[in-house]
Amino acid sequence: MARLIEELKKLPGVGTKSAQRYAFHILRSSDEDAAALAEAVRSLKAGLRLCSVCNNITDVDPCLYCASPTRNQRQVCVVEEPTNIEIIERTRSYDGVYHVLHGTLSPLHGVGPEQLRANGLVARAERGEIDEVILATNPTLEGEATASWLAAALRSPLVKITRIATGVPAGSDIEYADEVTMARALEGRRDVR
Amino acid sequence: MARLIEELKKLPGVGTKSAQRYAFHILRSSDEDAAALAEAVRSLKAGLRLCSVCNNITDVDPCLYCASPTRNQRQVCVVEEPTNIEIIERTRSYDGVYHVLHGTLSPLHGVGPEQLRANGLVARAERGEIDEVILATNPTLEGEATASWLAAALRSPLVKITRIATGVPAGSDIEYADEVTMARALEGRRDVR
Repeated sequence: MARLIEELKKLPGVGTKSAQRYAFHILRSSDEDAAALAEAVRSLKAGLRLCSVCNNITDVDPCLYCASPTRNQRQVCVVEEPTNIEIIERTRSYDGVYHVLHGTLSPLHGVGPEQLRANGLVARAERGEIDEVILATNPTLEGEATASWLAAALRSPLVKITRIATGVPAGSDIEYADEVTMARALEGRRDVR
Repeated sequence: MARLIEELKKLPGVGTKSAQRYAFHILRSSDEDAAALAEAVRSLKAGLRLCSVCNNITDVDPCLYCASPTRNQRQVCVVEEPTNIEIIERTRSYDGVYHVLHGTLSPLHGVGPEQLRANGLVARAERGEIDEVILATNPTLEGEATASWLAAALRSPLVKITRIATGVPAGSDIEYADEVTMARALEGRRDVR
């Protein structure tokens, strides 16, 4: 019981109280339910891997995006985490593929360029397989540093490198924009005719 | 007393309780303090007017921005409300002037082009006094409609017309971006080299 509680506490946002509540629930549930949970946890790890092309989490390799004949395989959107892909898919306005870095540069936490999974992308660009790399890392300090580093690492002059827009969110009031966002919204203004 | 409470309740966010508290405070304060408050309220209205050039609220006409020799009088940032100017000034990255519309197009509330204070801006553009109009209305339905209408109304081909960037706010995680904002951030992506 204590071991299960310790393991459950490793889940994000789960403290001792919640872990105890989950453990007691599992204790009271049927043998089948407990076995099904254990099996689901085990098979998740057994069945999933990282796509050998883009590092997305997948159960087939290459992943569905990288294997898709209807997506533009020459346009690559670089994201920090696999979950970011869903955000971009929800826009229904992107039909290229992805590349997942699994993190950002973070010297304070010992994450340098070697720890990022960017080599595959750089190699593909150098082989002439890519027309555009869209840097969609977060507009945070780490995300911007990572985007700058990657832009410099992608040396092939044939690859167009773009960065997603920083600005005032759609539907919001500029009254709530902070200085940095407002400055970037002005700097990134676009011709309307 | 009841009349004062009724008047105080017209202030934004002030309900009956707060209004009563303010009224009792004024009742208990010295005659001088009460007179000073009354005089401050009266002179605010007496001393302030709208700038005859840009419609900003000002105590001198033209306002300090429109009269400034160090600001670029040929670059005009169009905002919905006078308070928006402060947001843009805080960025310390803009040295042009402003034009305040005092609202947005809103057919449901009976606000059409005639109700917006845009004529002066259009006339200045047609007299060749403006190089660039930056449309900094909010990225809301009304703000976008107003920006589109104004872009069409500014027919002079010599005026560059730009729109502030919509996108993911600086410092935030794209995980929290809604679909429309993310779609606009992708659409508005910029070359990084």
